[in-house]
Amino acid sequence: MFEDKQGGLTPITNLGEFSLIEKLTKDFPSFHTETLKGVGDDAAVIKLGEGKVQLISTDLLLEGIHFDLRYVPLRHLGYKAVAVNVSDICAMNGKPYGITVSIGISNRFTVEALEALYEGIRLACEKYRVELLGGDTSSSRQGLVISVSAYGEGAENTTTYRNGAKKHDLICVSGDLGAAYAGLLVLEREKAVFLKDPNMQPDLTTYGYAIGRQLKPEARTDVIGLLENLGVLPTSMMDISDGLASELHHICHQSKCGAFIYARNIPIDYLTSRIAGELEISPYTFALNGGEDYELVFTISLKDYEKLKGIEGLHIIGHITDEPGRVQMELKGGSVVDVEAQGWTHF
Amino acid sequence: MFEDKQGGLTPITNLGEFSLIEKLTKDFPSFHTETLKGVGDDAAVIKLGEGKVQLISTDLLLEGIHFDLRYVPLRHLGYKAVAVNVSDICAMNGKPYGITVSIGISNRFTVEALEALYEGIRLACEKYRVELLGGDTSSSRQGLVISVSAYGEGAENTTTYRNGAKKHDLICVSGDLGAAYAGLLVLEREKAVFLKDPNMQPDLTTYGYAIGRQLKPEARTDVIGLLENLGVLPTSMMDISDGLASELHHICHQSKCGAFIYARNIPIDYLTSRIAGELEISPYTFALNGGEDYELVFTISLKDYEKLKGIEGLHIIGHITDEPGRVQMELKGGSVVDVEAQGWTHF
Repeated sequence: MFEDKQGGLTPITNLGEFSLIEKLTKDFPSFHTETLKGVGDDAAVIKLGEGKVQLISTDLLLEGIHFDLRYVPLRHLGYKAVAVNVSDICAMNGKPYGITVSIGISNRFTVEALEALYEGIRLACEKYRVELLGGDTSSSRQGLVISVSAYGEGAENTTTYRNGAKKHDLICVSGDLGAAYAGLLVLEREKAVFLKDPNMQPDLTTYGYAIGRQLKPEARTDVIGLLENLGVLPTSMMDISDGLASELHHICHQSKCGAFIYARNIPIDYLTSRIAGELEISPYTFALNGGEDYELVFTISLKDYEKLKGIEGLHIIGHITDEPGRVQMELKGGSVVDVEAQGWTHF
Repeated sequence: MFEDKQGGLTPITNLGEFSLIEKLTKDFPSFHTETLKGVGDDAAVIKLGEGKVQLISTDLLLEGIHFDLRYVPLRHLGYKAVAVNVSDICAMNGKPYGITVSIGISNRFTVEALEALYEGIRLACEKYRVELLGGDTSSSRQGLVISVSAYGEGAENTTTYRNGAKKHDLICVSGDLGAAYAGLLVLEREKAVFLKDPNMQPDLTTYGYAIGRQLKPEARTDVIGLLENLGVLPTSMMDISDGLASELHHICHQSKCGAFIYARNIPIDYLTSRIAGELEISPYTFALNGGEDYELVFTISLKDYEKLKGIEGLHIIGHITDEPGRVQMELKGGSVVDVEAQGWTHF
């Protein structure tokens, strides 16, 4: 009204999310030597003294972008909002401590609806032993807004960053990949059927695992405990929120290395493959680009191979190379393709 | 779609914000003895060892609720988003350390607009010596969403809570009150004129101070330093975000006491009074219920009176009583009225 607030005219779509963040945050000064890591990893890392560090992570969840309340129960949404933040603490090899939760709510929400949301938040707090430290509550003209920050603890010498991968390190992932995205596509398909004919009630019983992975993901605090018990300290680690391809590119970019993975070693659940078949999409697309699995991808030194070999639920899928920024995958037939961070859907 | 997610039917408007928060958070368990304060003060307080504590505060700012981009420049908005969080750290008698900033942006925003927002955020970071620790960036279908968390440091034995006020303590405020709300009303008035006739460009030159208080408030880190230099440790403290009346009720509620203040002692700027006159509203309504001044209200022990007396920018406005939950004010004419937390507009 009183001035031209928009100034220039460069659409944000001209830049990717990561270029935009880099552009916006590059001039920020640093004041405290205790900050070991600010912007640019799964969590910020702040030195506390006596070898301890604090980890801080934050995530914004917006209705219509991150969730669709037509098929996401509020209890599950509350649980997931906590789990995805705890997952970021795990990705630094830390232990979760507490969260803050801010919500913006439009007046179409009832008290009972909010109680369902907070019941999910509470269940996740109990599961991960994190406590609610505070938050902010506001009305919203714009549907449901959820902002969660998570706080964790770690040790200075065992915190795992994205930039520690070295040539010959082995690349590992936990659990299986692609199921969360497969579940999302099933839910979207059934929503479309439902919207066309509200009498058609979807039968989702045979898709349970994939839908569960989408609606109620878990943070892999157990994997952090397992690695500690095995005496394995990863050289780099991330959680898989955007898809394996994107995360490997982050690790390669920050570690100034490349990655070579084998399609046959990528863990994909049978149901994920079946859904991929129904939808005529490659299951590798789900695993590489689907995202929201909240599994961990990490690299280990070759010397730790024997400790990890054969451990259930952990999979060695490839190794680190010295070609900066290049992620390659050997397909089952033996040919090798470059894996792009996004939109890589050709096999 | 697949289940009745709304369950019961109690409108959220049936509960106030504070009752709602209490209802939603009452069953959350506590796991860590280091947490000295969770939900319920300006910031959470966590013990770090060696007598130090960490302070955590978070605020959600939503377009259409907390700001109107028709008259709020993005640079100012960025500055304010940081200042209001730093203010919460001040309210605990702490020193700010860092912030995280998450934003949700619709595609009508240009890169240049976001740069303006982040320039404001950066200016505030420089002013308060806080560093940007991280954040999240997302698209939004719904206008601008800003979620800021602030981290600060304090000492266990000098952290000020809402619950420490005692009978006979003196009630003090910093700066002057009501100007931010006066500025908001002027901006809203000029917006209405502008929307009616876009050729009418508002002349705001004579309202500068009030508009500045609304658009670019400052956190009173200087008052925290001043109190330290004076050797005064407040018995309770809050920042004035919702208005003096509401904050006094919080202090009285948590300290199980009452408050008695004198209208003649409430600091109100001449311009605030002039705007109140133009709008035919009592300036005390601005001061008590306007909010967004981000001044500090605190109580001190009687023994500290001599230290504080006559210090510029600090005002003793009343004292604590033993009537739990009752806030009273003596008007200039000598009559005494009860001050309600909200909607108290009669003088």
